[in-house]
Amino acid sequence: MPMILAANANAQGSHVGEWRHPDAWERPACNLGNAVRLARIAEAGKFDLLFLADGNGVRNLDKLDLFAATSPSDRPGVFEPVTLLSALAMVTEHIGLVATTTTTYDEPFAVARRFASLDHLSKGRAGWNLVTTSNPGDALNFSHEAHVPRDERYERAAEFAQVVKGLWDSWADDAFPQDKASGRFLDPSRAHALNHQGRHFQVAGPLNAPRPPQGHPVIFSAGQSEIGKELSAATADCVFAIEGTIDNARRLYADLKSRLPRYGRTADSLKVLSGVTIFVGETAAEADALFQELEDLVSPAVGLDYLSKMVGARMADYPLDGQMPAFAEEHVGPTGIGRAIIAMAVAEKLTVRQTYKRILPQMAGNLFKGSAMQVADVMEEWFTTQACDGFMIAAPVVPTGLERFIHLVVPELQRRGLFRLDYEGRTLRENLGLARPENRFSPSVAE
Amino acid sequence: MPMILAANANAQGSHVGEWRHPDAWERPACNLGNAVRLARIAEAGKFDLLFLADGNGVRNLDKLDLFAATSPSDRPGVFEPVTLLSALAMVTEHIGLVATTTTTYDEPFAVARRFASLDHLSKGRAGWNLVTTSNPGDALNFSHEAHVPRDERYERAAEFAQVVKGLWDSWADDAFPQDKASGRFLDPSRAHALNHQGRHFQVAGPLNAPRPPQGHPVIFSAGQSEIGKELSAATADCVFAIEGTIDNARRLYADLKSRLPRYGRTADSLKVLSGVTIFVGETAAEADALFQELEDLVSPAVGLDYLSKMVGARMADYPLDGQMPAFAEEHVGPTGIGRAIIAMAVAEKLTVRQTYKRILPQMAGNLFKGSAMQVADVMEEWFTTQACDGFMIAAPVVPTGLERFIHLVVPELQRRGLFRLDYEGRTLRENLGLARPENRFSPSVAE
Ligand SMILES: Cc1cc2nc3c(=O)[nH]c(=O)nc-3n(C[C@H](O)[C@H](O)[C@H](O)COP(=O)(O)O)c2cc1C
Ligand SMILES: Cc1cc2nc3c(=O)[nH]c(=O)nc-3n(C[C@H](O)[C@H](O)[C@H](O)COP(=O)(O)O)c2cc1C
Repeated sequence: MPMILAANANAQGSHVGEWRHPDAWERPACNLGNAVRLARIAEAGKFDLLFLADGNGVRNLDKLDLFAATSPSDRPGVFEPVTLLSALAMVTEHIGLVATTTTTYDEPFAVARRFASLDHLSKGRAGWNLVTTSNPGDALNFSHEAHVPRDERYERAAEFAQVVKGLWDSWADDAFPQDKASGRFLDPSRAHALNHQGRHFQVAGPLNAPRPPQGHPVIFSAGQSEIGKELSAATADCVFAIEGTIDNARRLYADLKSRLPRYGRTADSLKVLSGVTIFVGETAAEADALFQELEDLVSPAVGLDYLSKMVGARMADYPLDGQMPAFAEEHVGPTGIGRAIIAMAVAEKLTVRQTYKRILPQMAGNLFKGSAMQVADVMEEWFTTQACDGFMIAAPVVPTGLERFIHLVVPELQRRGLFRLDYEGRTLRENLGLARPENRFSPSVAE
Repeated sequence: MPMILAANANAQGSHVGEWRHPDAWERPACNLGNAVRLARIAEAGKFDLLFLADGNGVRNLDKLDLFAATSPSDRPGVFEPVTLLSALAMVTEHIGLVATTTTTYDEPFAVARRFASLDHLSKGRAGWNLVTTSNPGDALNFSHEAHVPRDERYERAAEFAQVVKGLWDSWADDAFPQDKASGRFLDPSRAHALNHQGRHFQVAGPLNAPRPPQGHPVIFSAGQSEIGKELSAATADCVFAIEGTIDNARRLYADLKSRLPRYGRTADSLKVLSGVTIFVGETAAEADALFQELEDLVSPAVGLDYLSKMVGARMADYPLDGQMPAFAEEHVGPTGIGRAIIAMAVAEKLTVRQTYKRILPQMAGNLFKGSAMQVADVMEEWFTTQACDGFMIAAPVVPTGLERFIHLVVPELQRRGLFRLDYEGRTLRENLGLARPENRFSPSVAE
């Protein structure tokens, strides 16, 4: 199997200073032209898929007094992903289209329909990134008083995914003869009502769409907790991971794959994609220079703002060049990125300024920086030593960062036999090396 | 104002026998190519908009033993409308894109987002057909034991629509300067959290999308009950009506318009579109011949099947050429199409066969049949005597029925000065002659 390459389809770079860079696109909020150009660039680079992250709210708006919502990364002006990818299906031919939808505030019948529809529109290129919603504030947009606790979110998610898959199997692949001569539009014996009766959902079915071209659109997930990883092992085809070191990534990879046999699954039925931001230049110095340019576009106000959001404290109240405070666990919570940042800052004795400079470039995952050879080397090492099956790539500046990666790194990966020369499969599933699921109700005659 | 013309974007004709006609497209279930061609035909004909009806279930599947689900009109194989129209936005430039979404099984934040996104994608051509779901069986796909009673559906719908409109006003039109030089991505003082606290919904906002190009995407509705009409008067920009006679249509038109002043609205702020199926030929005889051809494609089994669904009885148990039974009200319910059919059959002493032959051509509304002149005459009469502001047109056979209408009738309407020669507005709202709503939070400076 070749390495899997996924491109962040949000037509904004991953670096918080990016949108101000001279190379960055003008007016990125809900800009269709940019999204179309980005999709075409990624497809010309033979990427497996475009990925759109999503949330249902503006992050940090409740703290406008404390932190100014001044940046695209608070996501105040974005397309709804399934609508955007439906549009992009019309201007691309091969690349997969993966949209995020939450199981916490949506209905399985509706989600099954939208992704079946996207799969039909794109002739088998749809993927669903199943999330339980990471931004707590989204709850307030769905008549909830507070974020649903994680265990409850994942319990609902597990049942939700089972219902969605069952609905995709509503019709046998050959249930719609549509035969003018005999007047037989469909074959009722090939329809299967699901009649799901569960704790969270009761869904009769069948879905009002023929079985999707891929059987099931490809399911992605990204849980990092124990329960989140278990859901991935039980349900997902691909999982997004973010680990800062190759050793941690290898451990997570082995951990995820080891969970599969319990569900009767083989190791290659779940692909692990590692989130990474890539700064590449003709030389390492060129990559460093771009990195520095972006740093300089981040004013201390914005840097402090971001750090404040991460650790949940008003960092402008602390001296910029003083030591980063060792906030207690009660303050930032027992898990998550806030605690990791503080642990790192304390261990390395970083100042407040050094701390935000360290974290900002890594918001979308790990940082690979250097010449094309250096970047290809580290990608090869991660890929061949089972730290991942591929990468979810965010470019620091869009579109030039992605173009530079395709121009410089992709040919080197191809030369090394690590990446495809052209699309071979017709569907996203085929390109990812994933089998087409049998219909649970109507196994093929070969079975 | 010119007459408004809307085209049914379901790439299947309105006649139940249509799909078997030699002119009809092959394999209509989820066929993107057909949908694209249909959209282009309608846009070449200068239609105001494409309309996609919708439901979340397969109709009559629960009665598979009683009635075979053999026809596309049970909607077993359809695209989800917002995904399809997002795709069609990419292959059209002027025509409006109106999708149906239910308020009964969806969330206002999610609906506001999808239509805002479609409006951004299409540069101001989105419309939302607000329905409360007419197919009772859909309830079983959303963890409900039975259809929600009408009054409750409409109460929820009214609050739902208010929340959606409030969310569309989340940002002033100029809230996103996206200014690279100053680093000012958005202007927090131009954001407005909705903080809606109602009986059915609590929604904080703001929406995570800039204000839609149209301010508010155009809202359609089609309620026929008292409470349904009141919702249209309070909330909608356009209303779909189906009346079998011009006198009834005039009465409904006057009724709807008379409700507007109570909401501080003028008569031209709500457009009434009458649903109609048009059979047109070079001559009246040609139209009649097509009508006959379609009749002949309906076998007695299919005709009885349809009639059975309408009146809720197994009509195959009655003699085909015997008198249509006068089922009691307890049997078919006190309102609705079933009762009207029986009343008509009894009054006109129709046989069972004559009854289904009468109703089948009229499933998508009124029937206008004849030469181009005859059809233009009746459309002119309806339009100029305030029976409607325009028509929601279903072609009996797709695409030829629509092409014939555009070829034969549209030029005649244009000659009479009743219909546009070309698109004049840039948005759907402008083409329909509807004002762009002020932002409730940030009235323009001119106010
Ligand atoms: C690459 C990547 C992409 C993610 N995309 C989203 C997203 O679009 N929306 C979202 O709510 N959460 C997203 N998440 C968060 C995960 O869904 C998950 O909540 C998070 O990794 C914490 O794991 P846990 O839920 O098991 O605690 C993403 C995570 C990763 C690593
Ligand atoms: C032209 C037209 C189109 C309609 N489209 C839909 C639709 O797509 N989905 C739906 O559930 N109901 C649809 N309806 C039904 C109406 O929303 C409404 O339920 C029906 O007219 C009965 O009125 P009432 O709800 O006030 O009783 C449509 C009605 C008309 C006249």
